[in-house]
Amino acid sequence: MHASLTDTIIALATPQGVSALAVIRLSGADAIKVTDTLFVGKKLQAQPSHTVHFGTIGYAGKTIDEVLVTIFKEPSSFTKENAVEISCHGSPVIVREIVKLFLQQGVRLAEPGEFTRRAFLNGRFDLAQAEAVADLIHAETDNARQAALNQMRGGFSKEIKHLREELIHFASLIELELDFGEEDVEFAKRDDLRALVQKIQTYLTRLISSFEQGNVIKNGIPTVIAGRPNAGKSTLLNALLNEEKAIVSDIPGTTRDVIEDEMILGGIAFRFMDTAGLRHTNDTIEALGVSRTRESMKKAALILYLFDLTSTTIEDIRTEEAEVKALGIPYIKVGNKVDKASNSLIDEIKNQEFVLISAANRKNLETLKDSILNLVKVNEVKQGDVLVTNLRHFQKLTETQTALTRVVNGLNAGITGDFLAMDIRQSLHYLGEITGEITSEDLLANIFSKFCIGK
Amino acid sequence: MHASLTDTIIALATPQGVSALAVIRLSGADAIKVTDTLFVGKKLQAQPSHTVHFGTIGYAGKTIDEVLVTIFKEPSSFTKENAVEISCHGSPVIVREIVKLFLQQGVRLAEPGEFTRRAFLNGRFDLAQAEAVADLIHAETDNARQAALNQMRGGFSKEIKHLREELIHFASLIELELDFGEEDVEFAKRDDLRALVQKIQTYLTRLISSFEQGNVIKNGIPTVIAGRPNAGKSTLLNALLNEEKAIVSDIPGTTRDVIEDEMILGGIAFRFMDTAGLRHTNDTIEALGVSRTRESMKKAALILYLFDLTSTTIEDIRTEEAEVKALGIPYIKVGNKVDKASNSLIDEIKNQEFVLISAANRKNLETLKDSILNLVKVNEVKQGDVLVTNLRHFQKLTETQTALTRVVNGLNAGITGDFLAMDIRQSLHYLGEITGEITSEDLLANIFSKFCIGK
Repeated sequence: MHASLTDTIIALATPQGVSALAVIRLSGADAIKVTDTLFVGKKLQAQPSHTVHFGTIGYAGKTIDEVLVTIFKEPSSFTKENAVEISCHGSPVIVREIVKLFLQQGVRLAEPGEFTRRAFLNGRFDLAQAEAVADLIHAETDNARQAALNQMRGGFSKEIKHLREELIHFASLIELELDFGEEDVEFAKRDDLRALVQKIQTYLTRLISSFEQGNVIKNGIPTVIAGRPNAGKSTLLNALLNEEKAIVSDIPGTTRDVIEDEMILGGIAFRFMDTAGLRHTNDTIEALGVSRTRESMKKAALILYLFDLTSTTIEDIRTEEAEVKALGIPYIKVGNKVDKASNSLIDEIKNQEFVLISAANRKNLETLKDSILNLVKVNEVKQGDVLVTNLRHFQKLTETQTALTRVVNGLNAGITGDFLAMDIRQSLHYLGEITGEITSEDLLANIFSKFCIGK
Repeated sequence: MHASLTDTIIALATPQGVSALAVIRLSGADAIKVTDTLFVGKKLQAQPSHTVHFGTIGYAGKTIDEVLVTIFKEPSSFTKENAVEISCHGSPVIVREIVKLFLQQGVRLAEPGEFTRRAFLNGRFDLAQAEAVADLIHAETDNARQAALNQMRGGFSKEIKHLREELIHFASLIELELDFGEEDVEFAKRDDLRALVQKIQTYLTRLISSFEQGNVIKNGIPTVIAGRPNAGKSTLLNALLNEEKAIVSDIPGTTRDVIEDEMILGGIAFRFMDTAGLRHTNDTIEALGVSRTRESMKKAALILYLFDLTSTTIEDIRTEEAEVKALGIPYIKVGNKVDKASNSLIDEIKNQEFVLISAANRKNLETLKDSILNLVKVNEVKQGDVLVTNLRHFQKLTETQTALTRVVNGLNAGITGDFLAMDIRQSLHYLGEITGEITSEDLLANIFSKFCIGK
């Protein structure tokens, strides 16, 4: 169960750890008033909103830290409630002691996402925008950041809200017709309704089809480097990762957050999955292991299939490629150890679409990266681009689309107003769930529990 | 070499990681002006100091994030320079992109401790106070926090500065005497000088003797749990750690920062060091291993010596205790597995100072903790208590004390003014090094390089 939304909550808003600063955040009617009881400095309640004040936090003659306190007066804060941000020294001990003091004053620890939830419930933004806040924080590429920011700043919310209102208007008219019973009036012009539904469907189709790109941008591309044992899979992975890490860590201090087996290329995160080397075998047990590798390959969205050119024959290539091809997943044939390969083999494969590299000597890695990006094209996300990146939104959009198709079919079949109204209401319901006009405790709990504490 | 201190610097001030908020900090003459070029919102330069403004950060039509920007106008900032704090969403990608934008505008990445270094150089506080900022951030107990805060807020700085000025006065008078050469004048009354030096020595003695406590408070107590193999050392360590961890993590989210082998008891951090089980042996190789364990025991400040009461004889106890005692380190004799011990053994040791426990059943752990705290007494650090916790300060204080003793000896021996002046100058030098009136690039580099980036 979710606790009351009227009390005052507190949470650390910055990551745990030792650092220059930590920010502790409060929201609720009494946020500023309670802070006044623990803050030694100016009387905060008497200060204007959006001002910062130096002083100390403490209680009963004990000073915890020198702090800067920022106050935000309702409704001019993120949550639209009174809010306080305490910037203290970045020590876990100080954070703990300050939070403790506030808890003793009757302030409650915030639940995950509770600040954003309050912002949503107080009308700062709709549900789809609130969800984008979490996506923004968790964005791992600049494209994912831009897509989330676009959504947070409006995205499809306004348009969907507008279309939904138009549809509500028709639903009301049709329901009004029903009140007149047998009189055969038609307040809702069927042609206008049909035109509106088609307009909505066109818009939704565009959104739904953006999800493929949006999903790649948000979640990256599961990638497998496959091939026989000793083809150089790990060497290639390390070579690719190291090169990209060096770029990522241009800015000192970012390295800590680089995910071990992820490479960002052209604004897309490629997530590498482990696989054991593939080997042809008549041994039953070993065949089982290999089939497990094949299972994991099937989950990939991209396969880099590696051949060791110093020990592969043209027949091997033919057999192995046939197997990879059968999976139906985009793949790139990579010939490794090209600098030690025999000229005759190189000659034999020169007409095939091979990327020839030496992972150990970092030769032709750029060519390989270009091939990868040619296969997985993602356009840079520009300011204002509307992309669906959220699976929940995708599902609701699809459900709306299905319901609207029933409306169209009903119109075509000339069904009665009461059935038509039902189908329209269903579409309205799904649309409302996207933007949060229709909601439930379960839905909200599910969405906000995935947020960080302090957000 | 340290870079220029007049340019504008930037750094992330909060820990790396995904979180609700991150704070990026700028300081320098152009901090607000440069931010204006990247901030879409109000014109920041036209706003009063200590105000917060909502807007976006971006450049050339690309918006990175919605942010809150706080401006501080010189000299009303931590560094006494113009300063800006940008509070953005807590995503490493956003932080990286924002920092990048500022670097492109000619802002420079801050070096570790550079903000505090500027605060020191611009006279916000003296060197001893600046060092306390780092101690405050790294404090692992509430006592360590309070000791660092007391030092940061003044500590011994003011008193030392005052005493040093008095001493400078005498040094000047004596040097003036030298100008008069053969005339046998005495501007500096020797009795007054002697009284001042004694006053300083009394104060320094108090400070120097506080270091033993201060060091324990800041650095904790290296503790060894020793005993024969299978005495239950690891079980005891885990039992102690788990109990204290449960308390530390009353406040959700603090657990991540608990150091694995550290227990906080009575406001002191006990740092456990690994040792192999001690075993009596005639085997030369094994004896070497045991002697290595003994070496590590010698580095401890406290030994918990564990006996397995189910397999130990009264003779074993006698022999082993003699060995532990020989180390000259405070120790506690702990009898483990008391619930399975024979009554006769319990009876035999009842007059010895034994703490009888069962680590596995968590029996009598509280008694053990009380015994530990009785052996290592640390008073709670109160607001305003002045404690030396910093090794550098301790060393400089001791050097000053030695130099002052030479002054007293000189006075007693009636040495000439020129030699007296030299000894006084030496004392002044050491005192000045504590508070930073006397400093060098090497000293500052050494001190501030240990700070976090962003502090």
